[in-house]
Amino acid sequence: MPTSRQLDVVPNPHPGRDYEVSLEIPEFTCVCPKTGQPDFATIRIKYVPDQHLVELKSIKLYIWSYRDQGAFHEDVTNRILDDFVAAAGPRWIEVIGDFSVRGGIKTVVRATHGKPPSA
Amino acid sequence: MPTSRQLDVVPNPHPGRDYEVSLEIPEFTCVCPKTGQPDFATIRIKYVPDQHLVELKSIKLYIWSYRDQGAFHEDVTNRILDDFVAAAGPRWIEVIGDFSVRGGIKTVVRATHGKPPSA
Amino acid sequence: MPTSRQLDVVPNPHPGRDYEVSLEIPEFTCVCPKTGQPDFATIRIKYVPDQHLVELKSIKLYIWSYRDQGAFHEDVTNRILDDFVAAAGPRWIEVIGDFSVRGGIKTVVRATHGKPPSA
Amino acid sequence: MPTSRQLDVVPNPHPGRDYEVSLEIPEFTCVCPKTGQPDFATIRIKYVPDQHLVELKSIKLYIWSYRDQGAFHEDVTNRILDDFVAAAGPRWIEVIGDFSVRGGIKTVVRATHGKPPSA
Amino acid sequence: MPTSRQLDVVPNPHPGRDYEVSLEIPEFTCVCPKTGQPDFATIRIKYVPDQHLVELKSIKLYIWSYRDQGAFHEDVTNRILDDFVAAAGPRWIEVIGDFSVRGGIKTVVRATHGKPPSA
Amino acid sequence: MPTSRQLDVVPNPHPGRDYEVSLEIPEFTCVCPKTGQPDFATIRIKYVPDQHLVELKSIKLYIWSYRDQGAFHEDVTNRILDDFVAAAGPRWIEVIGDFSVRGGIKTVVRATHGKPPSA
Amino acid sequence: MPTSRQLDVVPNPHPGRDYEVSLEIPEFTCVCPKTGQPDFATIRIKYVPDQHLVELKSIKLYIWSYRDQGAFHEDVTNRILDDFVAAAGPRWIEVIGDFSVRGGIKTVVRATHGKPPSA
Amino acid sequence: MPTSRQLDVVPNPHPGRDYEVSLEIPEFTCVCPKTGQPDFATIRIKYVPDQHLVELKSIKLYIWSYRDQGAFHEDVTNRILDDFVAAAGPRWIEVIGDFSVRGGIKTVVRATHGKPPSA
Amino acid sequence: MPTSRQLDVVPNPHPGRDYEVSLEIPEFTCVCPKTGQPDFATIRIKYVPDQHLVELKSIKLYIWSYRDQGAFHEDVTNRILDDFVAAAGPRWIEVIGDFSVRGGIKTVVRATHGKPPSA
Amino acid sequence: MPTSRQLDVVPNPHPGRDYEVSLEIPEFTCVCPKTGQPDFATIRIKYVPDQHLVELKSIKLYIWSYRDQGAFHEDVTNRILDDFVAAAGPRWIEVIGDFSVRGGIKTVVRATHGKPPSA
Repeated sequence: MPTSRQLDVVPNPHPGRDYEVSLEIPEFTCVCPKTGQPDFATIRIKYVPDQHLVELKSIKLYIWSYRDQGAFHEDVTNRILDDFVAAAGPRWIEVIGDFSVRGGIKTVVRATHGKPPSA
Repeated sequence: MPTSRQLDVVPNPHPGRDYEVSLEIPEFTCVCPKTGQPDFATIRIKYVPDQHLVELKSIKLYIWSYRDQGAFHEDVTNRILDDFVAAAGPRWIEVIGDFSVRGGIKTVVRATHGKPPSA
Repeated sequence: MPTSRQLDVVPNPHPGRDYEVSLEIPEFTCVCPKTGQPDFATIRIKYVPDQHLVELKSIKLYIWSYRDQGAFHEDVTNRILDDFVAAAGPRWIEVIGDFSVRGGIKTVVRATHGKPPSA
Repeated sequence: MPTSRQLDVVPNPHPGRDYEVSLEIPEFTCVCPKTGQPDFATIRIKYVPDQHLVELKSIKLYIWSYRDQGAFHEDVTNRILDDFVAAAGPRWIEVIGDFSVRGGIKTVVRATHGKPPSA
Repeated sequence: MPTSRQLDVVPNPHPGRDYEVSLEIPEFTCVCPKTGQPDFATIRIKYVPDQHLVELKSIKLYIWSYRDQGAFHEDVTNRILDDFVAAAGPRWIEVIGDFSVRGGIKTVVRATHGKPPSA
Repeated sequence: MPTSRQLDVVPNPHPGRDYEVSLEIPEFTCVCPKTGQPDFATIRIKYVPDQHLVELKSIKLYIWSYRDQGAFHEDVTNRILDDFVAAAGPRWIEVIGDFSVRGGIKTVVRATHGKPPSA
Repeated sequence: MPTSRQLDVVPNPHPGRDYEVSLEIPEFTCVCPKTGQPDFATIRIKYVPDQHLVELKSIKLYIWSYRDQGAFHEDVTNRILDDFVAAAGPRWIEVIGDFSVRGGIKTVVRATHGKPPSA
Repeated sequence: MPTSRQLDVVPNPHPGRDYEVSLEIPEFTCVCPKTGQPDFATIRIKYVPDQHLVELKSIKLYIWSYRDQGAFHEDVTNRILDDFVAAAGPRWIEVIGDFSVRGGIKTVVRATHGKPPSA
Repeated sequence: MPTSRQLDVVPNPHPGRDYEVSLEIPEFTCVCPKTGQPDFATIRIKYVPDQHLVELKSIKLYIWSYRDQGAFHEDVTNRILDDFVAAAGPRWIEVIGDFSVRGGIKTVVRATHGKPPSA
Repeated sequence: MPTSRQLDVVPNPHPGRDYEVSLEIPEFTCVCPKTGQPDFATIRIKYVPDQHLVELKSIKLYIWSYRDQGAFHEDVTNRILDDFVAAAGPRWIEVIGDFSVRGGIKTVVRATHGKPPSA
């Protein structure tokens, strides 16, 4: 299984324009750092690219790299946000981690970076 | 059965950012203080953490601790709000208690603390 | 059958905070004052308590007390509003009477008192 | 309020044919014989008439007559069945009493009489 | 069949308060003034009463009175509005006539009078 | 088949009031001016009449008159708008042409005239 | 809190007829015998009474009595079946335990006793 | 298979009016420039024409022309936007590319040009 | 506009197998032979081919050929059935004509030919 | 783009048991043999394997191989059926081709081979 943590970017072919890219990734899994129990989530990412796009295949490998890592729900959502910001420097980005029920509790975490686009 | 009333916190790994954590807890039960009859509810919590996150397993144990307590609907919803505020000092928090029918009446209580995040 | 018209109150344990209590009562019945024919309604009440809460069991008995009374749709909705205001002095309250079809006509009555809470 | 327990019948104008009459009565209410607490139900009746039909207005008055009576869920459903059989002697009849939640329990009672019509 | 065009009113028992009364009348029928063909509509009325309420039974008879009258869709909706205004002088009123398909065309007419209530 | 292009009007019996008339016409058909192939659409018209109403039967005949005409989607929607404006001079009007799929492409055209009514 | 394990019965007022009583109890909770963790379930019971009915209030207390007991999913469903059979000797009975998710697994247990009624 | 990349235009017959044209194209397919694997999308275009309309058949052929081209999701959405702007110079235009799942990730890209019409 | 009444056939490339072809045609229109008023329908055809298939483009032209013909609902459904039988001699065929409302009445006509396939 | 027409098989590891494999392929595209116009379909395959399973990646490449082929709807559905039968010899197989609208007509083709499994 690929485990690269690298998010690759390609030049944004249309940097002169504000536009939105939305990604839905229903197959995220990591491991609870306290119990070792698998966790499952849908990750939703929406961003306005600046000079770079995040390349799709590297997102797939990046998401796979969490499979054997221990990560709290709040932390993993913010780390994905940070890694996208570090790699591609988007004008605006929102990351939502929608985690499955654990101990009878369902958790959803939402974080953003940058100035939201005007509707 | 564990009965700790302690909400444990962990440092917020991303305190420089406003972000939302949403929790849905469909398995809340307590006891009516007048009749001793069991009550059931879904508790919904949404908060913007400041310096601390509320640790998930301690939330589970905290919720279990109500199982044998007598509590009015309006009071229990506000107490959960107060306990989260005391433990983690969030920037904003909303607690909704959605109780099952009693005496042919369905009750929903909603309380908030702090300044709501801008959309 | 109990027929007390008294709405009992208990002290609001959290008077320092604006919060909402919502009640849905699908089992309201009274009698048409002109024809003696039974009427059925769902009553929906939402209020922001001030110094007092309305006690749940007394609401149940209060609602039962309409069972043998003659009451027009518009009047009964406003009377429930008045009785809640007189008993508990809420900061804001809304009462909706959603009556079943009579003579081929469906009636819904909505009345409020006080200043609505800011969203 | 009218309280006649009499189910009136009229001659079936088409006795040479097996056909079904279905009635749904969502506004049934009676009183719990143990607690005096009001009960609410939807009554569903389906029958194949023989020599008589049950007259509609008398069904309305008959249903109203339960308003102040104490009756167990199982008993009232069977009594409605018996009264229809006594009054109109249908070839087949089914009565379903679909009662509202009491003590956290929802009850549905279903009773039939006669030979069911072939599909 | 009753044919009274009179809308009867009763004193508003709560004139000191702005509140809404909503009526849905799915059984309206009149006759096309050009072809004599029956027309069907659902009439929806919402009003804030001032000194008077419109009595429910007279609404039923009033609606029946259109059965043999010829009336254009736009006119009948406005006439119902005018007749309510003349009879009860509401602070605000909205009448919607939702007519069934004629000649492959579905028509809905909406008219109001007075100043709409603030939400 | 009637083919009159004339939209007849009748005096608005209630010109002193702003009110809305909504028409839905699911049976519009015309012919593609390039290929001769039939096109199908639902036409939706909403207007606030001024001194005149558009008579319903003439709308039906007017719509039929397109049956053998060649018309582009964008043009036909605007022509219907123009013809209503010329015939009845409404205070405001919106016309939506919702066309069926052609060449794997679904087209919807929306045009308005005049100042929209305040909600 | 009442903890009686006794299911009370009353004489079946219509023993000469096969009829069905269906009960849905969405507020069942017990404790996992291995971890002490609370479990939640909806219990569905359907039975054809013979000489006795099970009294409703005793069912409520009986269900409450599981609140502090340790019980496996499969066991608790069969024990409810056994207790109903012992108390009321129904001609036929089905018990379904529909448990909430634990460890990412949802469990439903179904058990019956006696000869099922013909449709 | 036709492969013309030319978007043909026709004069806007109603240039004096702001109106919207919406196109939904569920049958878009191209090829991944990295893997050669086919990609599928629904393209949604909404624009306010200025002096020209984009002719429907040329849109169909234009969309077909992508069938054998390699194109990234973000790029193809912006290129369609650019080509419409170059061909017809609309007052405002929005293009949405709604792509099917690849590597467990669903992508939606949205880009606009010009000043959006006031509602 | 093309008006050929000819249904063209092509050899069934798999005559050794019973299989089903289902066609749904939502854009059928003809003219009422009594009033000249346009009629609209969805035509649904399902058949098991024998030696020939009916060619798709000729079906489109065949359906268009009804556009200016007068035809009763019952007749047109049976004529389509007859024409398919004459052209392609299917082992079994069903034609359903699902016509839009006329005079407040909706009509659906269904006709078949041949021995239905075993499920 | 890969264009192998080969369906690869692997040994069925459980040949002693009748079981079903269902495949849904929403991204099928081919070319109309008469007009060169692209066609789109969802292909649904259900089969009971005998000695062999059809390998998943070869199905993907097999489906891609139709991208540039001309094929009638009825023929392509039967050819997929034939190719599966030739490659894997299933005990039973059903292939459904659900094609997008062409010329206002939607086509669905269904073909089977072998003896259907008993329900």
